[in-house]
Amino acid sequence: MDTETIASAVLNEEQLSLDLIEAQYALMNTRDQSNAKSLVILVSGIELAGKGEAVKQLREWVDPRFLYVKADPPHLFNLKQPFWQPYTRFVPAEGQIMVWFGNWYGDLLATAMHASKPLDDTLFDEYVSNMRAFEQDLKNNNVDVLKVWFDLSWKSLQKRLDDMDPSEVHWHKLHGLDWRNKKQYDTLQKLRTRFTDDWQIIDGEDEDLRNHNFAQAILTALRHCPEHEKKAALKWQQAPIPDILTQFEVPQAEDANYKSELKKLTKQVADAMRCDDRKVVIAFEGMDAAGKGGAIKRIVKKLDPREYEIHTIAAPEKYELRRPYLWRFWSKLQSDDITIFDRTWYGRVLVERVEGFATEVEWQRAYAEINRFEKNLSSSQTVLIKFWLAIDKDEQAARFKARESTPHKRFKITEEDWRNRDKWDDYLKAAADMFAHTDTSYAPWYIISTNDKQQARIEVLRAILKQLKADRDTD
Amino acid sequence: MDTETIASAVLNEEQLSLDLIEAQYALMNTRDQSNAKSLVILVSGIELAGKGEAVKQLREWVDPRFLYVKADPPHLFNLKQPFWQPYTRFVPAEGQIMVWFGNWYGDLLATAMHASKPLDDTLFDEYVSNMRAFEQDLKNNNVDVLKVWFDLSWKSLQKRLDDMDPSEVHWHKLHGLDWRNKKQYDTLQKLRTRFTDDWQIIDGEDEDLRNHNFAQAILTALRHCPEHEKKAALKWQQAPIPDILTQFEVPQAEDANYKSELKKLTKQVADAMRCDDRKVVIAFEGMDAAGKGGAIKRIVKKLDPREYEIHTIAAPEKYELRRPYLWRFWSKLQSDDITIFDRTWYGRVLVERVEGFATEVEWQRAYAEINRFEKNLSSSQTVLIKFWLAIDKDEQAARFKARESTPHKRFKITEEDWRNRDKWDDYLKAAADMFAHTDTSYAPWYIISTNDKQQARIEVLRAILKQLKADRDTD
Repeated sequence: MDTETIASAVLNEEQLSLDLIEAQYALMNTRDQSNAKSLVILVSGIELAGKGEAVKQLREWVDPRFLYVKADPPHLFNLKQPFWQPYTRFVPAEGQIMVWFGNWYGDLLATAMHASKPLDDTLFDEYVSNMRAFEQDLKNNNVDVLKVWFDLSWKSLQKRLDDMDPSEVHWHKLHGLDWRNKKQYDTLQKLRTRFTDDWQIIDGEDEDLRNHNFAQAILTALRHCPEHEKKAALKWQQAPIPDILTQFEVPQAEDANYKSELKKLTKQVADAMRCDDRKVVIAFEGMDAAGKGGAIKRIVKKLDPREYEIHTIAAPEKYELRRPYLWRFWSKLQSDDITIFDRTWYGRVLVERVEGFATEVEWQRAYAEINRFEKNLSSSQTVLIKFWLAIDKDEQAARFKARESTPHKRFKITEEDWRNRDKWDDYLKAAADMFAHTDTSYAPWYIISTNDKQQARIEVLRAILKQLKADRDTD
Repeated sequence: MDTETIASAVLNEEQLSLDLIEAQYALMNTRDQSNAKSLVILVSGIELAGKGEAVKQLREWVDPRFLYVKADPPHLFNLKQPFWQPYTRFVPAEGQIMVWFGNWYGDLLATAMHASKPLDDTLFDEYVSNMRAFEQDLKNNNVDVLKVWFDLSWKSLQKRLDDMDPSEVHWHKLHGLDWRNKKQYDTLQKLRTRFTDDWQIIDGEDEDLRNHNFAQAILTALRHCPEHEKKAALKWQQAPIPDILTQFEVPQAEDANYKSELKKLTKQVADAMRCDDRKVVIAFEGMDAAGKGGAIKRIVKKLDPREYEIHTIAAPEKYELRRPYLWRFWSKLQSDDITIFDRTWYGRVLVERVEGFATEVEWQRAYAEINRFEKNLSSSQTVLIKFWLAIDKDEQAARFKARESTPHKRFKITEEDWRNRDKWDDYLKAAADMFAHTDTSYAPWYIISTNDKQQARIEVLRAILKQLKADRDTD
């Protein structure tokens, strides 16, 4: 380059840095606004194409306090967790930028290259479409995703290896790949073209251009903060309300066999869950006072607290609201055993819909998002068992009053609970739509009428046994 | 029990539940107040003494939305992490209650019972005193700690095993302990008496009494929310300010050898850190514009981003402020390799002291807390390398002005940076005290004068090599 070209390159570089920093601050200012978002940048590519250098250069150009870089060696796919599980805990909050140097595509490639039984193309493509659906869900929930592949031709790669200090070569054999092996290079290139058509491809040949193009792609992504749609395009088709939500049988007199049956079932449920080598997730939804706590108590009766976790879901905190609504559930699904949720991710299509905390577009989109989430879990050796505990409105009123007159139960009942009763029909409608859209083969709903508390507990336990068996049979 | 006794027991139980719930709400209301705290309950004990049942019963009595139970099987001690590492991520925020069913004492017992080479008493006691110091630090930082041991005599334990459903007995052989083995029982009892003198010991003999006593201990702990002391009892002894912080040599003209020396050193540093099987933590503090960013850039020059993490520490968020100040650093020390901090936990005794964000009592106590924190890391195969980058006040002003006149560097300089200059002497005093109290054999400070930027970078790299070697030699 002549002196003039160099001077202009320096100027461009300074302008780019300035633009990036301004875009970063603008992104931060979207926090809690109607165009809020965070940005995730997935970086993958050929070794020595310079992705590491480009990320380091990016760090020089931006305000590093608000750029987070996460760079891990690949996680080979683990049959007991969805591909997103190692990452979701780190999904950035609105206003933040995260570079994921290790990411699910890196894991996919590593798994495909290393598995004793290679992934066939169909399975590979299935993973890719699953990943794209997940990314679309992230985008819809204000986490923008930019994917950048750093490419390098075989010839240039070999030249760079030739030029390298011999003491450094070992490092680039990491993760079991040998970049001197042409066949392996070709396989990798062939595999990655199965997913990179919606990626930014950056040629690693020219260092300056590479760094510039990478930063420019990020700048463009940062600057794109559109207002989030609130109104749905189409009129919503309300599902009919199932009879089981409105018609209740009169409670039976106490069944003499209740205690012995309960004892038998709690033991069977504990044994079945304990001996199952899959994860078990049990989800409870239902009107207030329908007996979720009582049912959970019986499920864990014969278990030791080291065998399970119970999450009682309250209103989200601010730092949770700044991330996708599934985030606080993703991070509660890390344990290996039995996880019970007293209220769940279905809050999105129940309380958030009814109370207007989620927009029309958000809750209407959530059914498909939740189905994909549950399908991912179910495909990763997790048995999902979902309960709706139904109660009739008069019985609820009676239980509310009983709670109010019992000092140590009064905390369970607030003004808000009485106000929610005024929206009874809205909750019924929301529940009906939820069943219509999320009662899937891999995660069916069990709707249990709880006017008869004892009968309901028995039915919950039987449903768990049934679902553990059903899911096993279809495996 | 006769009818009257039963009636009175039920009444007591209801009152206890009510008291617990009220104490929970009162605890929640301490959030962000001058008597704020959270409560951690460490639960351990003899198998079948009923700790699991007591925890389940507790969950029935309280508002379960604000009680979190974490119950893991023991982690055998890992030489590469301090005993608190598996737990600290879960330290509750002010207002919250956490039951730790698996905890560091459980890990200590498991390690002592299982290690191929048993821990000798001296080492065991050292662990215990380390744990107690850690708990005291938690308490001082508003995380109250209650420790409860559930005990059961050998005779009762054997009787419970006799009475058990044979299909369940296997469960109680978990974690490699055999509760039918009298010798093992005696060893465990002997070991645990080495630490349980400050525990609540609950006899597991009588179920109701056991549950009641456990809840009662928690109630007492919940109700204890004293105002936090702010004023220190003694007058603070200011350390003299070291000359190196105030006397600077004139920068040398550019050294012709700088580039080749830098190149050699960046390579040596990368190799040394990469080949070291210990973790490396590099911490930067110093006045604004002293060149922390530039130094970090050179340290990672020859590394790939997958080999290190850089944390640029900004002001804490609200959810971080509700936990001990070390919490956000604990959770950033999970990686296995190289972690670099641009600003650190020393913020407690620098900016928080100078700006009054920490009380006198808090920052004066922090030196010892930080030393213990670093000692724990250092004892767990982590090399700590701490830098203070020193600059003189005029040179800083010149750099501030240069930043202001460079558009893409203007973000690095704000009104606040100029205001901080007015407190220059306060920062010098704080730094002097910091050196006086935290320059330890296991984590010494390297004070680097940075008026000469190039020289400073060379010195930083040399110091890293030196400390890696020094720490290796004393191992």
